[in-house]
Amino acid sequence: MDEKDVTYMRAALEEANKAREKDEVPIGAVLVERESGEIVARAHNLTRHLCDPTAHAEIALIRKHAKTVGAQRIPGHDLYVTLEPCPMCAAAISYARIDRVIFGALDQKSGGLSYVDGPNLYSKAAIHHKPEVTSGILADECGAIVTNFFRSKR
Amino acid sequence: MDEKDVTYMRAALEEANKAREKDEVPIGAVLVERESGEIVARAHNLTRHLCDPTAHAEIALIRKHAKTVGAQRIPGHDLYVTLEPCPMCAAAISYARIDRVIFGALDQKSGGLSYVDGPNLYSKAAIHHKPEVTSGILADECGAIVTNFFRSKR
Repeated sequence: MDEKDVTYMRAALEEANKAREKDEVPIGAVLVERESGEIVARAHNLTRHLCDPTAHAEIALIRKHAKTVGAQRIPGHDLYVTLEPCPMCAAAISYARIDRVIFGALDQKSGGLSYVDGPNLYSKAAIHHKPEVTSGILADECGAIVTNFFRSKR
Repeated sequence: MDEKDVTYMRAALEEANKAREKDEVPIGAVLVERESGEIVARAHNLTRHLCDPTAHAEIALIRKHAKTVGAQRIPGHDLYVTLEPCPMCAAAISYARIDRVIFGALDQKSGGLSYVDGPNLYSKAAIHHKPEVTSGILADECGAIVTNFFRSKR
């Protein structure tokens, strides 16, 4: 496991913790500029607070940084997210031309990337730019924070 | 073909025209409250102007109306869009709990719903709420506006 990946995933986990503190599903993400290695944007899930079903961490991150840069495509960046992206976010990550997506825990229920019988989005011709995918970075911690959140709701 | 569907799709086409006037890919959408039959929101593609790769007509519509209503889920609504939703928008429409999605032209290149070998999103277990889908309303007009736009760019 790449040490840098672990460092960035820890930053994404910090974002997930911020979501949990707001009683949102605890998923966090950071965007890293590949050349400098700098974290250029941080975001967490805020669907309830914003009354916006599209306000997942990844979408928030992309919208924020694309606006900062002044372009709808932001190549040269890697996106770290604690949970496997859903189909909506997986598509948005591709449209933004992000180079690589690195996620923590698999999402066996709603994941958009990993399951052969699932949307498995980056295997489809409809998705033209196919980011490189790495999974399993701090998977236990990234999965536990979500599992514990939903357990506390039951 | 239901006459009401045609009327609402004409309103979506008006939105697509607004996008074209702004030199954006001409796709438009309207959201209809099922009970009243009223158009409660209108939107068109604005990805370039907003520097936001997620600013597709459907996403804009959902964000706008969810905010107005003050909830991240907006059941009791139908969404009319001139072109088949992409995987990002198809997922967002499901998350918003929209009852029915009606589109004009098929998107053979990037559509998220219609092709068996494509993302075919509403056939997947990862998508829990599966809106009813109707296609082909004013398909020729809805397709031509996009085709002509890209032809003028070549």
